[in-house]
Amino acid sequence: MTLKLEPGAKLVVATHNPGKAREIAAILDNRFELVTAGDLGLSEPDETESTFAGNAMLKARAAAQASGLIALADDSGLSVAALDGAPGIYSARWGGPEKDFVGAMTKVEQRLEEVGAEDFSAWFTCALAVAWPNGPAVVVEGRVDGTLVFPGRGDRGHGYDPIFQALGEEISFGEMDPARKDEISHRARAFAKLKAALL
Amino acid sequence: MTLKLEPGAKLVVATHNPGKAREIAAILDNRFELVTAGDLGLSEPDETESTFAGNAMLKARAAAQASGLIALADDSGLSVAALDGAPGIYSARWGGPEKDFVGAMTKVEQRLEEVGAEDFSAWFTCALAVAWPNGPAVVVEGRVDGTLVFPGRGDRGHGYDPIFQALGEEISFGEMDPARKDEISHRARAFAKLKAALL
Repeated sequence: MTLKLEPGAKLVVATHNPGKAREIAAILDNRFELVTAGDLGLSEPDETESTFAGNAMLKARAAAQASGLIALADDSGLSVAALDGAPGIYSARWGGPEKDFVGAMTKVEQRLEEVGAEDFSAWFTCALAVAWPNGPAVVVEGRVDGTLVFPGRGDRGHGYDPIFQALGEEISFGEMDPARKDEISHRARAFAKLKAALL
Repeated sequence: MTLKLEPGAKLVVATHNPGKAREIAAILDNRFELVTAGDLGLSEPDETESTFAGNAMLKARAAAQASGLIALADDSGLSVAALDGAPGIYSARWGGPEKDFVGAMTKVEQRLEEVGAEDFSAWFTCALAVAWPNGPAVVVEGRVDGTLVFPGRGDRGHGYDPIFQALGEEISFGEMDPARKDEISHRARAFAKLKAALL
């Protein structure tokens, strides 16, 4: 076996979100035939690891094992220096079942006040894992560093984007043109590393 | 970058045990220049993940990051079906700081009695991870299935070897000739997968 993804290969994306799978297909230049874990009726494993890379690998390995296909999974989130890396791997969970990220961003701001933070450094991480059924897994991580801004600005992007301003930028991810964000984001960097490693 | 290990490459093995590094050098046909994390004065990260693969990756990534070298790490243990996979990633810790595996094997036997187990199925897992500094990580896993035998037999091998008899074998790992064990063990299978993927 070689750790290469051949064009036309069938991959299962470990998500139940068809939109996410379409987006990933585009990032991968539609080189692959993608199905989702949802399409195949696979259940989502508990994300029990303590790192983005660990959780991405756990999800990819579970999907590969259950489907017999090469599987791709991601895990990403926001880490705040003054909060010892929180919300980190719990970024999505801070939004709750309602995906209330206005609430989650308020929680970040409140925590920063509680600790009297003067340092507003933060970074987004995206881990991507590709797993072969009963075979190896390859994991990469992309990161973008920045500063938190309050109040949040802009209604583009998702999650914590309105309160995150990347280093060297003058607008938040919530205000940024998606094409520009796709050049500098943690996700873009992770996919660039994945392509360099596997294509 | 390509996910290949070139002959002569310098690798750091994420261990403080020089014997283990020598053993790994031999398994890898002395193709690489190996140093240990101990040689470099690197500290060992906490093994916070919930899986063998996750912990191997965590250790390899930490060693690669701290050293700037390609890093190799392993994580392995015994899983008992009737104990829901315990001791699993805690296999070494069940031996305690004194590495008392006689005590750990007794604990396995007591737990099996407590749950009234009739199924003595168990398996050894070995996860291996190779991480490039600031780059990808590759993780493989090898597994050998077997049955627990009490009382333990033989004084070869280490850890839980005396109470483990691989499927198709008539003696325990503790009684087995090391050369034979090196043909069928979880570790041998993991290294075979790693070599197939990266050499």
